[in-house]
Amino acid sequence: MFSSQQKEAIYQVIKTRRDIRSFLRDSIPIETLYRILEAAHYAPSVGFMQPWNFIIISSDEVKKQLAWAADKERRALSIHYEDDNNRAETFLSLKIEGLIDAPYTICVTCDPTRGGSHVLGRNSIPETDIMSTACAIQNMMLAACAEGLATGWVSFYKKNDIRDILAIPPHIEPVALLSIGYTEHYPTKPILETANWEKRRNINTVIFYEKWGKHPTT
Amino acid sequence: MFSSQQKEAIYQVIKTRRDIRSFLRDSIPIETLYRILEAAHYAPSVGFMQPWNFIIISSDEVKKQLAWAADKERRALSIHYEDDNNRAETFLSLKIEGLIDAPYTICVTCDPTRGGSHVLGRNSIPETDIMSTACAIQNMMLAACAEGLATGWVSFYKKNDIRDILAIPPHIEPVALLSIGYTEHYPTKPILETANWEKRRNINTVIFYEKWGKHPTT
Repeated sequence: MFSSQQKEAIYQVIKTRRDIRSFLRDSIPIETLYRILEAAHYAPSVGFMQPWNFIIISSDEVKKQLAWAADKERRALSIHYEDDNNRAETFLSLKIEGLIDAPYTICVTCDPTRGGSHVLGRNSIPETDIMSTACAIQNMMLAACAEGLATGWVSFYKKNDIRDILAIPPHIEPVALLSIGYTEHYPTKPILETANWEKRRNINTVIFYEKWGKHPTT
Repeated sequence: MFSSQQKEAIYQVIKTRRDIRSFLRDSIPIETLYRILEAAHYAPSVGFMQPWNFIIISSDEVKKQLAWAADKERRALSIHYEDDNNRAETFLSLKIEGLIDAPYTICVTCDPTRGGSHVLGRNSIPETDIMSTACAIQNMMLAACAEGLATGWVSFYKKNDIRDILAIPPHIEPVALLSIGYTEHYPTKPILETANWEKRRNINTVIFYEKWGKHPTT
């Protein structure tokens, strides 16, 4: 059983965690990074398949290559916002320097073949491998936040560029690049909310009762 | 900044959380359920799209229908293990009564259309919508664990059965059924480890350095 202080700590970390794009170059003790990765490894996984791997990137040369891949994709994607000046500007101002500045970037991968051909539970919903990997990522982000560290989840890149840079086999999915480091400014609101890109939805609009579309009467 | 007690609480909850299949029928205060769902809603999401919905199921009639769908799929899947007696037996002994006994089951859905046609970040990696939803599920499981509650993630069902039972539109993905309740016995090891289905991998086998397959020298 957890005390009320411990319980409050969980909720506080869940609400404090933010996606961060600006990192200080200060180094992180390797033991801290390993505690965060151990938290990831304790995520649940479908059929206990543990489909994840974590590639720790700290070399400046590799970080530059990742930033090149992300920047190329960012410029390609910005073309889809060119008819909306505000969004195009907001989009292009999103920093990818985090990949260079943060002392560590973790490439999180998912191996859909792990655990054999008939992983328990994955036979019905195959994307549960990716979902398990996302649970590991959420554990990492919460553990990092509790450690006083910031994380930034980068998802603009072509997977094959990342495979080429990190020698990842073709059947392995590089599902996230997660930069980890200290930050000077830890915002209280999501960056995309501050930039007026999206608002947090009213929680009552996402909760239904007994069936889709039915709102609670309480 | 979090105190060392608060930090330890996060790691303790992450390591204590287990997937549970046996629930007591005791009810849960609705405020507790809402705190858990609020924790889910504070998950990160790609382009802040918040693609999730949570359908709270407490009616015995609906719970029975969900259990019917899961049991049907469990029996169908067991045929794939029929050549391996141990696995077939372990598989069929996995309880789905949790769906009946737990006071609440939450159907977690993902709406891939939310946020429009060009959700920031999802243009490169479309499965980031499902990954965001999985981060919300992980928050739910951790919050429930901190509240002294158990959760069981059921992923054997045909999505269309769940859509039919809960009136979910065809473009919405019912990605998880999550039962929440009290349990008499909270195991220290994963059920599938105790059943000799899979072991926890040595963490050193899932960590690489600078590129795929390269192990840290430290």
